[in-house]
Amino acid sequence: MAEPIRFYFDFSSPYGYFAAEGIEDLAARHGREVAWMPVMLGVIFPKLGIRPLVEVPVKGEYSRRDMNRTARFLGLPFTLPEVFPTRSVMACRAFLWLNRERADLAKRFARGILRAYFAEGRLIDAPETIAGVAVAIGVDPAELAEAIQAPEIKQALFAASEDALAQGVFGSPYFIVDGEPFWGTDRMAQMEQWLAEGGF
Amino acid sequence: MAEPIRFYFDFSSPYGYFAAEGIEDLAARHGREVAWMPVMLGVIFPKLGIRPLVEVPVKGEYSRRDMNRTARFLGLPFTLPEVFPTRSVMACRAFLWLNRERADLAKRFARGILRAYFAEGRLIDAPETIAGVAVAIGVDPAELAEAIQAPEIKQALFAASEDALAQGVFGSPYFIVDGEPFWGTDRMAQMEQWLAEGGF
Repeated sequence: MAEPIRFYFDFSSPYGYFAAEGIEDLAARHGREVAWMPVMLGVIFPKLGIRPLVEVPVKGEYSRRDMNRTARFLGLPFTLPEVFPTRSVMACRAFLWLNRERADLAKRFARGILRAYFAEGRLIDAPETIAGVAVAIGVDPAELAEAIQAPEIKQALFAASEDALAQGVFGSPYFIVDGEPFWGTDRMAQMEQWLAEGGF
Repeated sequence: MAEPIRFYFDFSSPYGYFAAEGIEDLAARHGREVAWMPVMLGVIFPKLGIRPLVEVPVKGEYSRRDMNRTARFLGLPFTLPEVFPTRSVMACRAFLWLNRERADLAKRFARGILRAYFAEGRLIDAPETIAGVAVAIGVDPAELAEAIQAPEIKQALFAASEDALAQGVFGSPYFIVDGEPFWGTDRMAQMEQWLAEGGF
């Protein structure tokens, strides 16, 4: 059985949201599983000297236009949130906890959070949003709220950030297929050809 | 008659080279002309606080891999030059002079310079490379070498840089279609849909 596609994404990244909506279908077309791996670019960027895209003059203005247009191009509902980017530490911890229980549940949670933020304009830094998404997928929100305070979950998030840095992750989405890295929603076509042909 | 597609590119940009190989066919499919407009990102980047991609840690290493892979994906000959990026002031001036005479000649010159640099590994900062490309398209290299020293050509290049800054150009390739900007080879699919549908 081939290795899963490693799918790194930030809950606060529009392009991560776009990728999350398509990656499972893409992988399934090539008989692959997907390992979802949330990262916090707010931790990674300063270490690499990268400024968040929307803060760069001129390029930032273009990027806002590009996010909206790319959503229309892909046929996905999207509104850039008023508070953007935002903290995703709670969503990351919740994901990691769920992922220990059931990976498919964690993926549904991740998609729910991304849609809440980018399609519905809800604050994903707010406990009530986390709770709402949990309820929607059949998870007890009180149990989740308590679980994400556990030291081992905090430790797991720290380890995940270290792993992402070690793997060279510097953006969202960032994929690794059999050792080959692909950065950006716009490289998913190359990734699909790579999967189909075993490299090119 | 619809306006030409504005195609901004840097002679020292691999993605500008990739775009140059495809833009005329793309435009022709939609009955459009293309106005080729060389820019020097070395002038623009410092004003916007943007670092050249290959100089950013980790991201730079990825970008070198991406350039090579994207060339294979597009089926284009490519070797990242040993001296990269490089000065393109002479190529820009030569283009601008030729463009005053005959736009199609200037485009052939631009493609020749980009291929010399990215497919053949020749130094485009060298007078003999400029001369060689000139000869290949039937232009007297001595006449060209003299013409690009003219004050009005230097002034034209300055004006072109000012125009690019005013238009918000911050990368290569950068296209403007009826006021809508598209950055990157990887946005040419969106641009094509935009041309086909008059926006989306």
